[in-house]
Amino acid sequence: MEHKHKMGHNRVGIIGSTGYTGLELVRIISRHKHFELTVLTSESYAGKQFSEVYPQMAHICDITLEENNIEAIKDKADIFFLCLPHGTSMAFAKELYYAGKVVIDLSADFRVKDYNIYEKAYKVEHSAKDILHEAVYGHAEIFKDEIAKSRLIAVPGCYPTSIITPLYPLLKNSLIEKGSIIADSKSGVSGAGRKPTLTNAFCEANEDFKPYGIFSHRHNSEIDYILDNHVTFTPHLLPINRGILSTIYLKSHNDFTILKDCLKSFYRKSKIVRILDTIPCIKYVANSPFIDINIYGDEGGNIIIVSAIDNLLKGASSQAVQCANIVCGYDDFEGLI
Amino acid sequence: MEHKHKMGHNRVGIIGSTGYTGLELVRIISRHKHFELTVLTSESYAGKQFSEVYPQMAHICDITLEENNIEAIKDKADIFFLCLPHGTSMAFAKELYYAGKVVIDLSADFRVKDYNIYEKAYKVEHSAKDILHEAVYGHAEIFKDEIAKSRLIAVPGCYPTSIITPLYPLLKNSLIEKGSIIADSKSGVSGAGRKPTLTNAFCEANEDFKPYGIFSHRHNSEIDYILDNHVTFTPHLLPINRGILSTIYLKSHNDFTILKDCLKSFYRKSKIVRILDTIPCIKYVANSPFIDINIYGDEGGNIIIVSAIDNLLKGASSQAVQCANIVCGYDDFEGLI
Amino acid sequence: MEHKHKMGHNRVGIIGSTGYTGLELVRIISRHKHFELTVLTSESYAGKQFSEVYPQMAHICDITLEENNIEAIKDKADIFFLCLPHGTSMAFAKELYYAGKVVIDLSADFRVKDYNIYEKAYKVEHSAKDILHEAVYGHAEIFKDEIAKSRLIAVPGCYPTSIITPLYPLLKNSLIEKGSIIADSKSGVSGAGRKPTLTNAFCEANEDFKPYGIFSHRHNSEIDYILDNHVTFTPHLLPINRGILSTIYLKSHNDFTILKDCLKSFYRKSKIVRILDTIPCIKYVANSPFIDINIYGDEGGNIIIVSAIDNLLKGASSQAVQCANIVCGYDDFEGLI
Amino acid sequence: MEHKHKMGHNRVGIIGSTGYTGLELVRIISRHKHFELTVLTSESYAGKQFSEVYPQMAHICDITLEENNIEAIKDKADIFFLCLPHGTSMAFAKELYYAGKVVIDLSADFRVKDYNIYEKAYKVEHSAKDILHEAVYGHAEIFKDEIAKSRLIAVPGCYPTSIITPLYPLLKNSLIEKGSIIADSKSGVSGAGRKPTLTNAFCEANEDFKPYGIFSHRHNSEIDYILDNHVTFTPHLLPINRGILSTIYLKSHNDFTILKDCLKSFYRKSKIVRILDTIPCIKYVANSPFIDINIYGDEGGNIIIVSAIDNLLKGASSQAVQCANIVCGYDDFEGLI
Repeated sequence: MEHKHKMGHNRVGIIGSTGYTGLELVRIISRHKHFELTVLTSESYAGKQFSEVYPQMAHICDITLEENNIEAIKDKADIFFLCLPHGTSMAFAKELYYAGKVVIDLSADFRVKDYNIYEKAYKVEHSAKDILHEAVYGHAEIFKDEIAKSRLIAVPGCYPTSIITPLYPLLKNSLIEKGSIIADSKSGVSGAGRKPTLTNAFCEANEDFKPYGIFSHRHNSEIDYILDNHVTFTPHLLPINRGILSTIYLKSHNDFTILKDCLKSFYRKSKIVRILDTIPCIKYVANSPFIDINIYGDEGGNIIIVSAIDNLLKGASSQAVQCANIVCGYDDFEGLI
Repeated sequence: MEHKHKMGHNRVGIIGSTGYTGLELVRIISRHKHFELTVLTSESYAGKQFSEVYPQMAHICDITLEENNIEAIKDKADIFFLCLPHGTSMAFAKELYYAGKVVIDLSADFRVKDYNIYEKAYKVEHSAKDILHEAVYGHAEIFKDEIAKSRLIAVPGCYPTSIITPLYPLLKNSLIEKGSIIADSKSGVSGAGRKPTLTNAFCEANEDFKPYGIFSHRHNSEIDYILDNHVTFTPHLLPINRGILSTIYLKSHNDFTILKDCLKSFYRKSKIVRILDTIPCIKYVANSPFIDINIYGDEGGNIIIVSAIDNLLKGASSQAVQCANIVCGYDDFEGLI
Repeated sequence: MEHKHKMGHNRVGIIGSTGYTGLELVRIISRHKHFELTVLTSESYAGKQFSEVYPQMAHICDITLEENNIEAIKDKADIFFLCLPHGTSMAFAKELYYAGKVVIDLSADFRVKDYNIYEKAYKVEHSAKDILHEAVYGHAEIFKDEIAKSRLIAVPGCYPTSIITPLYPLLKNSLIEKGSIIADSKSGVSGAGRKPTLTNAFCEANEDFKPYGIFSHRHNSEIDYILDNHVTFTPHLLPINRGILSTIYLKSHNDFTILKDCLKSFYRKSKIVRILDTIPCIKYVANSPFIDINIYGDEGGNIIIVSAIDNLLKGASSQAVQCANIVCGYDDFEGLI
Repeated sequence: MEHKHKMGHNRVGIIGSTGYTGLELVRIISRHKHFELTVLTSESYAGKQFSEVYPQMAHICDITLEENNIEAIKDKADIFFLCLPHGTSMAFAKELYYAGKVVIDLSADFRVKDYNIYEKAYKVEHSAKDILHEAVYGHAEIFKDEIAKSRLIAVPGCYPTSIITPLYPLLKNSLIEKGSIIADSKSGVSGAGRKPTLTNAFCEANEDFKPYGIFSHRHNSEIDYILDNHVTFTPHLLPINRGILSTIYLKSHNDFTILKDCLKSFYRKSKIVRILDTIPCIKYVANSPFIDINIYGDEGGNIIIVSAIDNLLKGASSQAVQCANIVCGYDDFEGLI
């Protein structure tokens, strides 16, 4: 394929690189064997060096930030990662897609193929319906084959990744009683992005904990769409920087060990999905590309699944690079472990 | 009643006063209009001043700690709070009870009247079966009348308080579908006590989050016993000092507003139970005697209840003082708000 | 005095009550024996109840917030606390002062009597020079006599309180070598106020630590003015909600025990200043009105003083109430311990 | 040299690998191009897999831990990192050194060549005086040439690294007034190791901050010995997992820009020492091998230096690998950036 013409060496651009997912992409790509960062853009910081915005990256990435002008930058890279807000991303994706680029979109704009669902959840009109059918949901383990053939990848949301990864194989194998799924999810504050708000202010979030978006979070439609099942989903805000842990409740007619075996089998080829024998926790996955999962059952048919990811990595940037590796035909885990 | 002979002024002792619940009791009682601290004991720190163990209490409580010797101290107070580990507490409670004292026990030893349940959950023999039937479960709103007539009060566990408070009235009024209750609870680290362990070490708990005791936590038997219903209960460890938030899932044939009205009506006389119109969170109840509750429903009969308490206060020490106020005939909330 | 005409019961107003110092004032005054909250104002939240802005105060303070319109509210209270930004506060203070009210100003506007110093540090013109000479620096222990006779009190800054309290008596007694004082201060994030900024965002401040305002913090001029000595002062941002700890380095020709005795003697009447024999720390003073101090020396004449306060209490709101108590002739510590 | 016989591929062992510095070494070496982990030992966990002790390392390092028995393991590796307590390390170091191995010791046992100073500070007898003169202080920038020729490296302490790095070149160039140096240092809790204590318990350290070891910390002797100057050094405990920031005060007859130029020149070849133009902070260096430094001056000859490191990396494990790279003749920064 055209976008693989530089096999062994790909030029990479990041649009909207100065948010938290952009920072993680820069970290990963800077040490990736086959990818080279050639263009970074930023609406707010164009003209500055990336390491002026994030001094922790001095001596690692000192590239000067350019404006979000696709015409001016599109020839500088073969693969583009888009770290833009939903609603904004689709126009950029469209332009880059028609320019023949590989587009890895970290926004919500191409995750759900039914634009009615998207428009209802996100309250914006979808302006790239013409390429929506080309998009592949970038869960790198579940849709690997489709990802390999596409060049428009919609990287899954962070909460959905923590919930879909364990549930998808179980539902495919009819191991879950209909209508019984509850996902109680807890996320670190970076999930809300870098823009300062009262909710995310240190003195408000620190030493606090609370649910939000009860019965109304936008990720619920993404979860339900991909799983083709309704999940009662409640997100909570944890006073930590990064990480999501989901405690998932469901009913099954099967013993939990059968469900666990199903997951082990489904994910046997992935180094990233770890089916643990200990209790998953955020510490084990923070700053790593892994998703950890364990399953428990009682005698009454109640099943509890615990899954944990780093919301900025398997929940965004490392999953995005995993997809890019697959698209380019590299080892899935190159640059990640 | 005998134990009220000093109406308007009661001498108070705390057995095992140097743990976190002891510290909170000392704080509350030091500024209580009708209670005077006359004896504090400690196994580890006998001979030292309370303010040497907790320098934050200098100029507030400088009492010298005595040994856990009931014979030596029993005449020094009329009301005794017991802040001892389960299994240890019952012997002290028995001795003090037979000496005619008011006993407010913060351990698990007298919470469940069926000692078989207790012995199974706590793996110890119950050595005070003779007075177990005298004990009243010290939920100060639900069992106020019984508390007023007793002088052996078993202060509820912290997790159970957060779960029983909203569910008890709903179950009494048959507003919950049988077998549907799931309580996903999250607690600050002080819930595990003051003894250093690897789990509670700063570098382990900080920036982490995880469930524990899945399908096996001892508080589950207490919850099920008091509610006379099974609850699927999962506790989690939050990286904060204090506070519990429980997210409770259940099914109901009634609209959530009817459930909310039921709670408002049941708790109308309590200044401590606050049925909120905003989302409860730990920040609103930390360092306070309140329990905050709100209820949400969707169109499919799914109900979510959110409740929040300070695990050391409504979950232990302020609830204990609330009970003592009731036993002594004072205003329920004296010294608390 | 006029403003004491309701001895035993004073009506209290807070202008700008919805910041963090306002919240602490509301807490303290709500349980104060002689003060009654009669008016609260807010620029942003007028029309709402205080407990809508701070739901933790439900059932404690449900007063409706009024606009910052002095003419409309001045007759509703006798004592006014001003929790406004520097530059804004002086106009309100002036109007209330001329209306015969007791004015307790928590801003920087009246702390330094030399308006040139103020204008240079704060880059605004002083618009209340006519009453500046009436203002008393509200360090409740050091200037108690002056406070008692005034009705315009400038509550000290938080950093200055932690530094001036130990140094003032030592300098008065010539126990410090000239030109040798360094104060390395560390503050919790609430010191920066409630307005969301990138610096105060959770993900930025959490797990971080750094100095700021090196050789240029505005509090330096206040410290130097009150002490009549130059202090090399460096503030740092701690990833905690509240508290300041200052580590102060100086040289002395005297043994550190002589300095310690000097402090003990100077503050012998205050329950708030605690000269400790253990190491002061923020935990001991958080949520309390105390200032803890200890002094250490080596054989080379180097002295280290450690002081700790709650920046919102002794560093602001409890000191303000301590001043109000003194102005009104109540026990200095009424409502504080 | 003998220990370089496998140039391009070295077998590496870690003695005492299950503490926090061991974990970081395992992380770094697992992805190092030229080093292969062949043996890990642990006193407490022998027989378990490393990833059972640290589940975050599953799929990265699943090596089975062996006992601390040098005789049994010495032939399995060429380079040994020792992560043992001071006093314990020297015997192991001696045995491995005489067996011809490269020994990188992270304890304090070989940092100071004058064993009298060591014995006084650490209250133990030095039992390896015969090889003490062979040891090189492993500050990888300052003593690079000596490190390259040695095979017994004493990796510097974490606090000393943050203080010596900026001061060593300034003192060598006589840019500091004698007797004027004060280092106010702040460290995350991991600096105290993994063993649970009350000081390091979450509820004690969280939301707290305090100095310790005032005028008496053992690292003071190391700092003074290496700098050949006395520094007034005060460590403090920060409520974060990792990182040290030192605020260093001194007097100079030179402008601060001259001091800054001196540092830039001295460290011009190091990618690890970053002389910043912004304020150093812990966030910029956490989880990285860098040390960030900036210098400030006022008109009165007062100089403030701010330096920041990750205590577990430049303060221990990455510095250790930097030394191993130098000993083996690899690029200094191999595996680190």
